[in-house]
Formats: sequence, structure tokens, C-alpha cells
Amino acid sequence: MKTKRIDVFLLPALLGETDLSGGVAVVIDVLRATTTITHAIAHHADCVVPLLSVDQAKEEGAKTPSALLGGERGGQKIDGFDLGNSPAEYPESTVRGKKILFTTTNGTKAMQACRSAQEIFIAAFVNLTALCNQLADCEQIFVVCAGTEGEITREDVLLAGAIVDHLSADATQPIELNDQAQIAADAWLEAKTGLTATSLADRLKQSRGGRNVLRLGQENDIDIAATLDKFNVVPKLNPQSWEIRDSRNSTP
Amino acid sequence: MKTKRIDVFLLPALLGETDLSGGVAVVIDVLRATTTITHAIAHHADCVVPLLSVDQAKEEGAKTPSALLGGERGGQKIDGFDLGNSPAEYPESTVRGKKILFTTTNGTKAMQACRSAQEIFIAAFVNLTALCNQLADCEQIFVVCAGTEGEITREDVLLAGAIVDHLSADATQPIELNDQAQIAADAWLEAKTGLTATSLADRLKQSRGGRNVLRLGQENDIDIAATLDKFNVVPKLNPQSWEIRDSRNSTP
Repeated sequence: MKTKRIDVFLLPALLGETDLSGGVAVVIDVLRATTTITHAIAHHADCVVPLLSVDQAKEEGAKTPSALLGGERGGQKIDGFDLGNSPAEYPESTVRGKKILFTTTNGTKAMQACRSAQEIFIAAFVNLTALCNQLADCEQIFVVCAGTEGEITREDVLLAGAIVDHLSADATQPIELNDQAQIAADAWLEAKTGLTATSLADRLKQSRGGRNVLRLGQENDIDIAATLDKFNVVPKLNPQSWEIRDSRNSTP
Repeated sequence: MKTKRIDVFLLPALLGETDLSGGVAVVIDVLRATTTITHAIAHHADCVVPLLSVDQAKEEGAKTPSALLGGERGGQKIDGFDLGNSPAEYPESTVRGKKILFTTTNGTKAMQACRSAQEIFIAAFVNLTALCNQLADCEQIFVVCAGTEGEITREDVLLAGAIVDHLSADATQPIELNDQAQIAADAWLEAKTGLTATSLADRLKQSRGGRNVLRLGQENDIDIAATLDKFNVVPKLNPQSWEIRDSRNSTP
């Protein structure tokens, strides 16, 4: 029986020279990029295109006038953009059928760091179970936490740990974890003790990312981000086309 | 009442541009450098001098023929050295009154990274309580995990979490933690659930550092490293003289 291997990286920089080409990557930026992208895809956006710079997004937007521009700098909506980085700004009435050109500070960089993986999935608490079902048959999984401005953030680590815990509980084969995966799982198991949706939200509010979001007056976004399994959808980033689509609708 | 602040760094590289000059640093390399140094100091070595290279240690040794050369490369004792990196090699009969010129792969680098701190303490499970008593009145503490070859290792993170947990329990003032400190504390609290000396040793054996030590056939070193509060001693590295001495005998 083949071993399943899960390697967690608490920051993209910790990937170092790791070769992702033999595995599947999972990108985490709970507050708020990957939570927001999951909302957009669950609400039937055609696709989300993650872009590194504001200029790139504006250039692409000029070429595709029907597209929406979304994202943040310093947590705030960008001048001239249609949407910010709050999941609440991405209801079906706004995004259905739309291409969304999306740029955020940390999440987009984490996706770029995973570019060489066979497949790239987008993870949030709102799609935890759907994601883990998708990963059930993958032999080598790289889970990459975006962090905030080069610092490890607890909210991303907790989700990484939840993924490790979920996959370990479901696995029929032996699982190998790197130390960062073990640490993330420890953190999640400690958080899970007596966990309710409220206490997960409370923990997220204490994290570095959470404090940033509170400072922006967006507490509601944290409550949304802490809602486990709100959606049964897995956004998938195609490394060639660089578009994120519902994994059920995307070509491999 | 002044706030106490504890910042944990899961690797020296994660210090980034952090300015340590306003605080006290704690260096952790549980398997095995800081455990071994604590044994040497508890067994009345005169001092331990942490050196980056084998050549440096040999040069210093040539100048001080009474000194002992200790340390490892690839976990093994170095050719021409008196002692390796196993705590069992540092009994009082060997080290009492001796100067020890000591070089290890990861621990020494972590100490170098802390060079600008006001004071530098050496931490291990074998001196956890003594260390925490020493830190009780410090307002800004930087806890730096050595890791192994640039990778985060669980055994160092568990000790960092134990220090955070211990200081938080004892504190009479509010405590601020960075996210890495919160994650380390989560990992320790999860490990502590039902903890016995055996299960701490077992956890250390599963870690990256632990697997390395097992590969070297030094399982006993892990059991020693997992012995909580074996000693009531805190080795202190003087940033000027670059010597580690018992904090009770060292000048500030």
C-alpha cells in the first residue's frame, strides 16, 4: 500500500528549493483571499484570475471590459476596482458568470510559489470537507500557508492542521507528515477541543490576520471565514491558464 | 502594569530584521546542542564557547591546550575532537573546571542570530523551570528555535511552547504573544494532554531531529533530552565574551 505524504509549509518562503512538480498543492489565505475566492466560485463566477500587481489587474481589465476587478492593498479596496477582499462583496447577484481579476497582497504570492505543482487547490474553512474529499486519493500533498507580509499567521496554520487532521482520520493508508504538518495538526487539535463556530471565530480574531481585519472594521468577514463547510466546492487554479474555476468544471 | 511580550521564532531565518537589542533571547536546540550544553554547565564546566566552524574550534584549542573540543558534524563526533554532541559524554568527571570549545551545525548558528540581544539564555527541557524562573521579570523575550538545516523541527517548537505556557501561567501582568508563540503553545498544550516523560520522549522521537538522532543509534540521548527539570541551572551566553556560563556565576 502506497504511503500518503503531506508536507505543510507555514510560509511560502519555507518552501525553499522544494520540488512541487510531483504533487498537488493547496493554498491557504483564510483572512481573506482564499475564503473570498471560494465564495466567488461557489456563487458561480466564471473564473477568478489571481494577479500579482494592481497594474496587471487594470491592464487585463482594459482588455476584458466585462470582467470585475477585485482585491486589496493594505486590506482596503483598491481605487478604481469594483470589489474589495471581503467575501460578503461576492454574492451570486454580483459575480455569476463573471471573470474576476483579483489581486491581494499575500494570497496571490502563495499561489505563484505553487506554480510548478501538478494541480493547485484553494482552501478555506468554508470548503474544508469538500477540499479533503478532493485530496483523498492524492499521494503527495503540499499545503502552503500564505501568512501576512512574510510572517506566519495562526489562522492559516489552524486550517493547515485541520486539513492534516481530516485527511489522517480518513486515510486507509499510512501517512507521513513533515514537522510543520505535525505542528499545524497539534495547533488544530488543541483548538478543536471544545470547538464551536464561535470559538473558531474567536481564535481567528486573536491571530495576526484577524487583528488586521478587526482594525479594518470587518469583523463580520472573520465570522464568515470561520464557518466550516458552508460550501461544497473546490476552486482549482490551472497552472497553465492561470484561472481558478470550480474543480468540477475545470479541465485537468 | 507593564505588558510582558514573548515572540517565538520557529527558525532563526524567521527573525528577519527583528531588532533584538531591547530584549532577552532564549536559544533552543533540544536535540541536542542546548541539552548537551546544559549538561556541561550543570556538571560544572568552567564555560562553553560556541563556535561556528571546526577550524575555529581547532585554532582556539591550539591556543588553550587544557580546553576540550566538543561537537558534531552530521550528528557524529568530529575527527580529532575529545567529545561529540551527546549529553552523556559530558559528566562531571569529564568536564568539571574545563573550558569546552563547542561547535554544532544548527545550535551555534541560532546563538549567532541572537548576538544583539541584551542577554542570551540556553534552553532545554532539562532546565525548563529554572529558565522560566530566570525569565519571570523580563518584559521582552525572544525565543529562537534552531531547527535542523533550515527546517522547522517539532522538538524545538514543543519546548518553545512549554516556555510560553509556563510563563503565561506564572505571569501577574498581561502577556502579548506573536502568532508563532501561540502556535508553539498550542502544540505544547496538545502534547501535554496526558503527558508523561515517556510520551514526551516518544514525541521527540517522531520529530525530524528525533529521527536523525535515532538514525545515529543515540536513542538514549532523546530520553535524556525529554527529562523535565533534571537541573536547576540556566546557561547564559555573554554576547561580549562569547562564553556560556552558569547564570549565577556570570557577569551581566
